[in-house]
Amino acid sequence: MRSDTKTRILKAGAGIVLQKGFFNTGLAEVLEKAKVPKGSFYFYFKNKEDFGLQLIDLFAGYLASNAQGFYLNEKLSPLEKVRNLFKWQAESFQKSDFKGGCPIGNLSLEMGDRNPAFRKKLNQVFVDLKKNLAKQLEQAKKVGELSEEIDVEETTDFIFNSWEGTLMQMKVSKSLTPHEVFDRMIFEKLLDKSRFNKNIIRRTSR
Amino acid sequence: MRSDTKTRILKAGAGIVLQKGFFNTGLAEVLEKAKVPKGSFYFYFKNKEDFGLQLIDLFAGYLASNAQGFYLNEKLSPLEKVRNLFKWQAESFQKSDFKGGCPIGNLSLEMGDRNPAFRKKLNQVFVDLKKNLAKQLEQAKKVGELSEEIDVEETTDFIFNSWEGTLMQMKVSKSLTPHEVFDRMIFEKLLDKSRFNKNIIRRTSR
Repeated sequence: MRSDTKTRILKAGAGIVLQKGFFNTGLAEVLEKAKVPKGSFYFYFKNKEDFGLQLIDLFAGYLASNAQGFYLNEKLSPLEKVRNLFKWQAESFQKSDFKGGCPIGNLSLEMGDRNPAFRKKLNQVFVDLKKNLAKQLEQAKKVGELSEEIDVEETTDFIFNSWEGTLMQMKVSKSLTPHEVFDRMIFEKLLDKSRFNKNIIRRTSR
Repeated sequence: MRSDTKTRILKAGAGIVLQKGFFNTGLAEVLEKAKVPKGSFYFYFKNKEDFGLQLIDLFAGYLASNAQGFYLNEKLSPLEKVRNLFKWQAESFQKSDFKGGCPIGNLSLEMGDRNPAFRKKLNQVFVDLKKNLAKQLEQAKKVGELSEEIDVEETTDFIFNSWEGTLMQMKVSKSLTPHEVFDRMIFEKLLDKSRFNKNIIRRTSR
């Protein structure tokens, strides 16, 4: 079962890389954890870089599927889906004692300067995750949860970038507070429709 | 000149650590770059951890003094000081082809899980930098640049956390765009006084 073994190697690698970073992860350690005979690595991967790039795909798929779990929940409004997704991520991070964090963000800072192929692929993962988030904000506009004045692309970018910094601060402070601040500032201030409505009310009453 | 040599070691270390991370920085390489005889390291530092902790002090001093350069500029209003500081940081980052980035942020993701003493010290640096930023926002409130309704502590936290994520995204995308988005969202949306003023106008006109 070639593909099963490969997946097992990647999954074992994911756990170790999230803990130690990519550069310091030894292949022998990954293969031992995956219970795959040493030496068979090159049957599945061209080299460590190829392994790393495929690992990014695994992480990206994991993040996208977590997000889809919320985006496809028809019981929630578009903004509730997004807000709950961030809350769930924050609480999951807390459950792991704020260890690890966003694999794509961590690898970006660790490998961004070291390896252009990694950097480009990591950037593409962010672009794709942002696209899916933007769709939710578009939907929120359609159902009237968000003001028409919101620039979805720029707002999505900002929310996403802020979130990566929020995860970093949760990690370094070992606290949920950065998420709580993010949650209030994004959903009760920046996206708060009433702040825009006031604007509209003023305009129409002129 | 004991203290000069020590500073030279720390400064040499700063450049290498910003490039390669702390864990992968070899002491021999640092001493060679500092032109200090191998073996004399332990005259200045207890161990590599002690060196790393003192390196964080160096980075923190550097960041704080950059900020002070803007905060003490009496030609600028409080909000202009803050806005220009971020712009300058973004443009400096661009000049280095988005290599390196925020040393405190990078070390937080790299060392946060590995070394509790590092994590605590890095967190304290963030707390201190935020305090100085908060003073500027308080000042902006006093001179009427910011709405009275702004919660300075929470807003400072959010701006700062968002900035760390913005730096990460500049690095991974090798682009100034994340700064441009941050600049508009923070200074033209989140802190925009007119959005709050509308609020006040509405209230008083009831």
